[in-house]
This record gives sequence, C-alpha cells and structure tokens, in this order.
Amino acid sequence: MKDFLIAAMPGEEAPAKRLAQAMGARVDAIRIHEFPDGENLVTAPAPATRTAVYCSLDHPDPKFLPLVFAASALRDQGAREIILVTPYLGYMRQDKAFHAGEAVSQKIFCRLLSDAFDKTLTIDPHLHRTKSLDEVFGAGRARAASAAGLLADMIGAGAKGAPLLVVGPDEESAQWTQAVARRRGADWVVMTKTRAGDRQVSVMLPESAEVAGKRVCLVDDIASSGATLGEAAKLLLARGASSVDAFVVHALMNDAQLAALAEAGIRRIESTDAVRHKTNTGAVAPLLAHELKAMLGE
Amino acid sequence: MKDFLIAAMPGEEAPAKRLAQAMGARVDAIRIHEFPDGENLVTAPAPATRTAVYCSLDHPDPKFLPLVFAASALRDQGAREIILVTPYLGYMRQDKAFHAGEAVSQKIFCRLLSDAFDKTLTIDPHLHRTKSLDEVFGAGRARAASAAGLLADMIGAGAKGAPLLVVGPDEESAQWTQAVARRRGADWVVMTKTRAGDRQVSVMLPESAEVAGKRVCLVDDIASSGATLGEAAKLLLARGASSVDAFVVHALMNDAQLAALAEAGIRRIESTDAVRHKTNTGAVAPLLAHELKAMLGE
Repeated sequence: MKDFLIAAMPGEEAPAKRLAQAMGARVDAIRIHEFPDGENLVTAPAPATRTAVYCSLDHPDPKFLPLVFAASALRDQGAREIILVTPYLGYMRQDKAFHAGEAVSQKIFCRLLSDAFDKTLTIDPHLHRTKSLDEVFGAGRARAASAAGLLADMIGAGAKGAPLLVVGPDEESAQWTQAVARRRGADWVVMTKTRAGDRQVSVMLPESAEVAGKRVCLVDDIASSGATLGEAAKLLLARGASSVDAFVVHALMNDAQLAALAEAGIRRIESTDAVRHKTNTGAVAPLLAHELKAMLGE
Repeated sequence: MKDFLIAAMPGEEAPAKRLAQAMGARVDAIRIHEFPDGENLVTAPAPATRTAVYCSLDHPDPKFLPLVFAASALRDQGAREIILVTPYLGYMRQDKAFHAGEAVSQKIFCRLLSDAFDKTLTIDPHLHRTKSLDEVFGAGRARAASAAGLLADMIGAGAKGAPLLVVGPDEESAQWTQAVARRRGADWVVMTKTRAGDRQVSVMLPESAEVAGKRVCLVDDIASSGATLGEAAKLLLARGASSVDAFVVHALMNDAQLAALAEAGIRRIESTDAVRHKTNTGAVAPLLAHELKAMLGE
C-alpha cells in the first residue's frame, strides 16, 4: 500500500497514523493557517495515486469548508481518487422535515461530501428512514462498517464476576445489542424510549427481563448528551443490576454530561476512537484498514 | 415588492429589516436550533415568488453549512429563485495557490455558493487576479456593488476644518480612494505597501504628497487586522497631517486591533454595516435595495 496516502485533518493525526500503520500506508498532515479575520488557508500534501482524507465529522459546521478545501487542494495537485475516511458521520439524524420549513440536513450534507470526494467510508452511521448511504451519496459511493465486533472485544477485555447482560437503551440500538451479545454468548434485552426534547427522555424495560445480579453492559451507536444511557442505568440499578457499564461507538458527551452519567450510577463508560473523546478505549484503525483495503480492491 | 421575501440568517435581522424597508419587501427570520452535540437544525420561513437570504460572510466557516441548509429548506418549500445577499463575501483573497498544495479557497467557496443560490449580490468583493465574479460564480450569476459613494457620504457628514486629503493605504485601494475624492472634490494620494506576514506591513508615501496641515481620510475596502491603516496613520501624522480618520467598507478588526489603531493616532474609524461591527456608521441598505431591484428587473 505504498502508493496510498492518508492525509490527516488537524486533530486527526493520531488516529490517521494508527490507520496508516494498520494498512502499511503513508500518512501526512493537512495544514491549516488561520488568518486574524477567521478565514483559513488549507495546505494539502502532494497526493499519492490514491489518497484518503481522515476527518471525523462530529461538530461538523466549522470543519466542513476546510475539509472541502483540502479535497480541492489534493485534486489541484493531480489526485485522481480521493476517499473520505470519516469514522463519525454527522448530520445523519435529520433525514426528513419533521416540521414545515426544516432543512433535511442529512441529504444536503451527504450530497456536499459526495461532490467533494469520490468515495466515503464511515462507521455505524445513525440511519433511520434512510436505509442505505447509497440513497444519499449515490450508488456505491459510500461504505458503512460496523464496530459491533470492536464493542464486543472492549466488553470482553474486562469480563469477570457476575453473569453478563447486554442491554440496548432503545429500539434503534437493537442491532448492536444483538451482535455484541452473540459474540459474547450473553443474554440481551432492548429497552424502549420516549423522547420529550433534546435532553429529556424516559425509558422502559420489559417486565420479563432478568436484571437482578447481572453485570449489565449498555451498548449503543451514539451517546450525544448521554441522557438515554443515564435514564437506562437508573432503571437497571433499580431493578437490581449488580453493575452498569456503557460501551458506545461514538461518544459526544461533554464533561458535565459525563459527570451526570457517573451520578446516574454508570460505573465505566468506554468508546471507540471514531470520535476523539476522553472515554476512548477501542481503536477503529484495524476495522477501517480492513474496509479501506476492500474498497481499494486489495 | 410584496412578492419578495428577505430571509435573515441569525444575527442579520437588523440589516435585513433595513433592506426590506428600503425595498418595501417582506422580512422574516431563518431560525437555528443548536443541538447539544454541535449540530444545527435550520428552519426557513415559507418562501415568496422570489426570495433573498441575507448573510454577511465574514468568519465564514461556521456560517456555511447553516446557510446552505437554509437555501435547501426554501427550495424544498417551492422557492424557484433564491438570491444570496452577502454584503461581505469572504474568501476572496486566496485566488491562486501561492505555494504548492494551497487550496484556492476563492474558487471553491464561490462554486459552493453558486451551487446553492441562483444569484449572489455583494459589496466591494476584494478581487485581485480574478477580474470579475462571473469567473468564479458563472456568467451573470453574481453582482458586485460599490460602496464608494456611501464612504464619501460618511466622510462628508463630518466635513469641516482643515482641507481634506483622501488617502489610500495601498495600491489596491486606489479605486475607492479616487471615487471618494472625486465625489468630495478633494485631493487624493495612494500609498504603497510591503507585507511581511499576516500582521506585519510597512507603507510608503510619495515624497511629493502634500500632507502637512491636511485633514486626512484613509479609505479602504477591507480592514482585517487594521495593521495597514495603523502604519499609514503613523506615517501621515509624522508628515504633518492635522488629523487622520479612517473609513472602510468592511471592518473586521477585534477590540485589541481597534485599540492599536487609536494608539497609532487614528482619531475616528467608521465603517459600513456590510459587516456587523462596533465602528458601523453607514447603512448599505439603500445601495443593496437599488441593486436588488435592478437584479429583479424592477
């Protein structure tokens, strides 16, 4: 893979380097010089035959223009194929106008990325009504990997004591819950969620679920505010769980929200490094390397 | 103009309202709800037959995605023609790769705006090698108005005392300097500038320039850091100017930079409201209204 370059956006140097090592590829940095008036000058390294740009798209608004500038700077230097490696793809939730006049940001964001990059690789995009990234990127233009196996490995690393119960905090987390439970040979259950605002949620657990004395591992794709995980933990502890840990692919909570999760009784929160976060314990590099090689036909 | 709506991006409500009043058009607000994870939900009002979005593009990176989302939300509701009214159009300076690998942000930024909006109206874009916005927006897709007349009016409002000398701090300011001086029937001179970094500049004044005893008005399109104006003022005062004021179309300096300009001896700094700034004294609304009516064929 010596003819493959991974160009890291600022702040992404460490995970991009891990990916490059996992692939035996080159890694280099995209540089940004910020002018006093808030504009940015983006400088990209000389591209290889095939080039990837590494940029996780949490907090996407300020990252977007520099990212597109980087793609253009690579193309101006002769890059023929540019792959966006974005372990976390933001703006996946607004997939329709829930009220009159709302922008469908998923559709617009993906089209803009698709205009700038030939292909996109991401991990566990939070799709709901949109069934496949093909619908919003164009057929064959985007690939979504699943980190369920990585979450199972992260849970397994600390496995001892009480019997394990894998719990999904809402219906949308069922696919990760089941995949993780299967890999660990554990029981699983999925809660149901009712939302009443950005931060206000309530959860319910089937009466039949056997929680008492169990080492519970909550599993989800995204923890934004963490409100769902917090409510889930309180209910599980009230039902007699011996401990509650949480394992998520994409962790976005701020410090106050993390503190609230500890308050709610969650013993340990772990996440993959798809989004840079203080709870990171699992590296997505091997997973991304595997998928990228498949995309490159290796 | 009752079938014309001006939709204001957040923070632009006041100048958008002034524009609507100058045109006899309707004005409404584009709303942005920020989620805890840094993503935004943009909601646009119902469009009119023809609709403008008002958004000055200083500090452009965080504004860009919400702006494009707004355009899309208007189109989803049936808008046929959407005009971007951006009194200050950012990213005009990087019109070529000065060093290997640099992104040509002017070209990319204008193409992205041109993809989202049918037409664009701006004031005094800082063009250099690019001769016309047509080159980067597409023929007939963008219109640039000049605020030289407005600057002349702003200077005239305070005119008394020593004879006026209109001074441009560098060669690029010559067009504004001459236009303003002609309107005020005053002498003018243009300085030459040498730049050694974002904030380090030196200026020179022709030996023949008669500065002593003059009320000097520095005139420029943009003051980013203000460094050029500061160096110009020091030199003009050393050459005997009785006072130095500055009048700019687009003011971008922060508080520390403003304080440095007072320190350099500039008595008064005034700007148009093309960029919202504490030095604003002139309203671009009448100018924009005139141009918009021409674009709409009224």
